[in-house]
Amino acid sequence: MPNKKLINIPIVLRVLSFLLIVESVFMLSGISFAVYYDESIFPLLISAIITGLVGLTTWFITKKNDKKNIGKREGYLIVSLTWVIISIFGTLPFIFSGSIINFSDAFFETISGFTTTGATILTDIESLPRNILYWRAMTHWIGGMGIIVLTVAILPFLGIGGLQLMIAEMPGITPDKLHPRITETAKRFWAIYVIFTVAEVLLLWVGEMDFFESVCHSFATMATGGFSTRNNSIADFMPYSQYIIIIFMFIAGTNFTLHYFMMHRQFNKVKSNEEFRMYSWIIGVISIFIAFGLFISVGLNIESSFRDAIFTVVSIITTTGFVTADYSLWPSFLWMLIFALMFIGGSAGSTGGGVKIIRHLLLIKNSFLEMKRSIHPQAIIPVKYNGKSVTQQIIFNVMAFFLIYILIFSFGTLVLSLLGYDFETSIGACIASLGNIGPGIGDVGPVDNYAFFSPMAKWFLSFLMLLGRLELFTVLIVISPAFWKR
Amino acid sequence: MPNKKLINIPIVLRVLSFLLIVESVFMLSGISFAVYYDESIFPLLISAIITGLVGLTTWFITKKNDKKNIGKREGYLIVSLTWVIISIFGTLPFIFSGSIINFSDAFFETISGFTTTGATILTDIESLPRNILYWRAMTHWIGGMGIIVLTVAILPFLGIGGLQLMIAEMPGITPDKLHPRITETAKRFWAIYVIFTVAEVLLLWVGEMDFFESVCHSFATMATGGFSTRNNSIADFMPYSQYIIIIFMFIAGTNFTLHYFMMHRQFNKVKSNEEFRMYSWIIGVISIFIAFGLFISVGLNIESSFRDAIFTVVSIITTTGFVTADYSLWPSFLWMLIFALMFIGGSAGSTGGGVKIIRHLLLIKNSFLEMKRSIHPQAIIPVKYNGKSVTQQIIFNVMAFFLIYILIFSFGTLVLSLLGYDFETSIGACIASLGNIGPGIGDVGPVDNYAFFSPMAKWFLSFLMLLGRLELFTVLIVISPAFWKR
Repeated sequence: MPNKKLINIPIVLRVLSFLLIVESVFMLSGISFAVYYDESIFPLLISAIITGLVGLTTWFITKKNDKKNIGKREGYLIVSLTWVIISIFGTLPFIFSGSIINFSDAFFETISGFTTTGATILTDIESLPRNILYWRAMTHWIGGMGIIVLTVAILPFLGIGGLQLMIAEMPGITPDKLHPRITETAKRFWAIYVIFTVAEVLLLWVGEMDFFESVCHSFATMATGGFSTRNNSIADFMPYSQYIIIIFMFIAGTNFTLHYFMMHRQFNKVKSNEEFRMYSWIIGVISIFIAFGLFISVGLNIESSFRDAIFTVVSIITTTGFVTADYSLWPSFLWMLIFALMFIGGSAGSTGGGVKIIRHLLLIKNSFLEMKRSIHPQAIIPVKYNGKSVTQQIIFNVMAFFLIYILIFSFGTLVLSLLGYDFETSIGACIASLGNIGPGIGDVGPVDNYAFFSPMAKWFLSFLMLLGRLELFTVLIVISPAFWKR
Repeated sequence: MPNKKLINIPIVLRVLSFLLIVESVFMLSGISFAVYYDESIFPLLISAIITGLVGLTTWFITKKNDKKNIGKREGYLIVSLTWVIISIFGTLPFIFSGSIINFSDAFFETISGFTTTGATILTDIESLPRNILYWRAMTHWIGGMGIIVLTVAILPFLGIGGLQLMIAEMPGITPDKLHPRITETAKRFWAIYVIFTVAEVLLLWVGEMDFFESVCHSFATMATGGFSTRNNSIADFMPYSQYIIIIFMFIAGTNFTLHYFMMHRQFNKVKSNEEFRMYSWIIGVISIFIAFGLFISVGLNIESSFRDAIFTVVSIITTTGFVTADYSLWPSFLWMLIFALMFIGGSAGSTGGGVKIIRHLLLIKNSFLEMKRSIHPQAIIPVKYNGKSVTQQIIFNVMAFFLIYILIFSFGTLVLSLLGYDFETSIGACIASLGNIGPGIGDVGPVDNYAFFSPMAKWFLSFLMLLGRLELFTVLIVISPAFWKR
C-alpha cells in the first residue's frame, strides 16, 4: 500500500471509532426523557446500538495501532471526518422516529446541529417527540465540546489563520509547545462549558421553562447553536428567559480563556483584552443604535426595543441564531446592520463561529498601518495586539483566511443562485451556513426555515457549514490534491 | 510656517495650475462643435477663460518653485487634488449652458467623467447641446490620459497594491528606477491611446454614426468611461457599431504594455501574459455561458444572445458601463454573474478601473498555495507570475488592498442604506461608483440613472469614484493623520 506511510488510515479509523462510542453513550442519555414523557424508547436505543456496535467493531479491528502515530496529515483528516461521520450516525434517531424521513434532510439537520449552526428543515418543530428534540439539542452541545478541543488543541498547533494568538494567552502554554498540556487545557475549558450549561439550566428552570426545555435551550445557547424546541424560537418565552439567554449567549461567544481568568480573579487580563473590548463595544453600540431605531420607527416601547435589539445583536454576532423578533421586517438600514454582523462572528476560543472578532481587529489595525507604512517605507511598523507585536506571518495568515472566506462566500452565493434561488436568499443562506448562524436574509429570514431547498442545495449548504465550522483550512487542505501526494 | 518643509504646497499648486491650463485648452476644442452645430459658444468659452485665468495666475504666483522638489508626500497630494480640482472647473460648461443647474449634480457628473465612471444624473441626455455632450465625453478622455500617467509613473513608484509587477514588464524599466524614463513611457502609452481612439472614430464613422457621435463614443470607450450621447446608450445603434465598441472596450481594458509589445511584434509576450489570458478566459467563458442562458431562457436569436452577452460582459469587466441590454431583467443567475464581474475590473496598466485582474490572479494563486504551505510548513512556496517568483511583500500589499476595498465597499453600502436606499440599490451604487463602472443593480440598473439620489448621497458616491479611481491608497494616505505629521 503506497498510502500506508503517507497517511496512517487505521489510526484515523481508531480515533473515529472512539468518537462513535462516545456518541452512542450520548444517545442513550436521551432515553430518560423518552421514559419520562412516555415516548417510544426505540429510536434512540436502536440508534445507540448501531452507532455503538460500528464504533466497537472498528475499535477492535484497529486495536494494534498506536495513537502516537498521529501526525499533521492524520490530524486534518480526523477533524474533517469527525463532523461528517458523527453527523451520518446522528441522523439515525431522526430517521427511526420518523421525524425526518428523507436522508438529505436528516443529514442537513444533524450537521447543522453538530456544526452549531442551527438552520432547520423542520416546519413544525413542536410535533417531534421530546426525546428527539433533546437529541437535536444534544448535537449542538456535543458540537460545542468538539469545537473546544479543536480550538485548544488542534487549530493553534496547525497554525490556522492566526488563532495561535488566542491560545498563546493561556498561562504556561505556547503555541509551539502545546502537546504536554493539551488534555489539561481541554479539561479546564470543558469544565467551564459544563458549569455554565448547568447554571443556565437552573436559571431557566426557575423561570417559566420546564426542565426539558431548560436543558435543550441551554445546550443550544452554550454551543451558540440556535435550535429551539418551539416553532417561534425564543419569542414564545417571557422577558426573564430572554434576558438569561442573552447573558449566556454573550458568555458562549467570549474567549473561554477569559472565563478561566475571571475564575482566577485576574480581572485586569479580561478588561485589557482587546478582542473582548471590541466584542463588547460592537454589541453595545449596535444594540443601542438598533434599539433607538426600533423605538422611533417601529413604535415598540423602550424595554421591548432594547430587548429585541440586544437579543438579535448578541444572537447574530455570537452565531447562535435564536430569534425573538423578525428583523427582516425592520427598516432596511437596521436589518442591514444585522446582516453586517453575520460577517463578524464570535470571539476566538469561544464556541461561536464566523470569521471571529480577533481577525477583524488585526485586519483593521493592519489596514490603518498600511497607510503609515506607505508614508514611511523604511520603518518596520508591526501590528500590536494586547500590547505585543504580531508577526507579519500571522497577519499574512489572517488575511489569507479572510480572503478565502470571501471567495467561498461569493462562490457559494453564485452556486445557490445557479440552483435557482434569488439574490437575497442566496447570499443569506450562504453566509448563515458558512458562518454557522442559522437565520439569514431573504427566504431564510429569522421566521423561515430551510425546508424548501432542493436536496442538492441542502448538501451544498451542509458542506458550507462544515467548512465554516472547521475554520475553512482543515477541510480545504484535506480536499486539496497536495494533501494526498508526498 | 511649520508645514513648509513637510509638504511643499507651492509646488503642488504649480502642478495643479499647469493642469488647469491644459483643461482650459481641452475646453476650447469643443467650440468647433458649437460653431458647426450652430450652438452658443459662450458656455465653453467662458469656462475655458475662467479655468485658464485661474491656472495662469497660480502658475505665475508659484513661478519661483522648482519641480525637482516633488517628493512622495507632494506626489500623493497632487494626484488626489488633481481629480478634485479639474472636476470643480469641469462643472463650468454644464452650469453655464444651463444643462445642469445644481452644483452637486454638476460635480457628480464631472467627476464621474474624469474618473471614467460614467454614472450620470441626466434624465434626458439628448436634450443637451452637442458641444456640452462633447465636453462630457472629453472628461472621460482626459481622465483616461490621467490614469495612464498615474499607472506608468506614479503608482508603481509609490508601490501601491502590487501594480509594480505590471510595469516591471516594460523593457529597460524597473519599478525602483522609473524616473529616467517616466516621460518616455507615458508618451508611448499616450500614443497608443491616441492611435486607438482615432482608429475607433474612423471605424464608427464609416458605420451609422456621424463624426460627433463617433468622437464622443470613442472617447468614452478608450477611457472605459461609458457616457453615451443617447438616452438608450449603445442599444440605439446597429450591430456593426456594437461590435466595434466591443473590440475597443476589450482593447481599452488590456494592459497597454501588451499593445506596445504587439506593435513591436513580440506576440509571445502577449500570449504568455497570465493576466491577459485570465482576462480573455473570463470574458470568453462567461459570455458563452450568458449567451447560452439568454438563448434558452429569454428566447433571443443566437446572434443577439451572443452580442448582448459579450457586450455586457466586456462592458462591465472593463468598467466601461455602456449598455445594449437591460441585464436586470435577465434570469437571476445571469445578472448575478454580471454583478460578480463588477468586483473584478480591468487589467492593470489599462484605463479600466476596479480591483484589477492581476490582483485576483495573485490572490487566487496565493490561496491555493496556502493549503500547500500548511502541509509543508518548512518549505518556502512563493507565488509565481509570468514565470517569476513574486515577493511575499507584494502579495501582502495586494491582500491589504483587496481587504480595504471590501471594507470600503461594506462601509459604503451601509452608509447608502443609512441614507435611505434599499439593499440592492445600496450595494449596486456602491460597487458601480467604487469600481468606476456606472450601471449597478437595484435602482441604478443599466437603464436607470443617479438623478434620484440626495445631494449628500451624490457627494458620497463622488468620493467613492475618486477612491476607486486612485487605487484607494492615494486618497486614503492623504486623509490619514500620519500624512500631515512628521
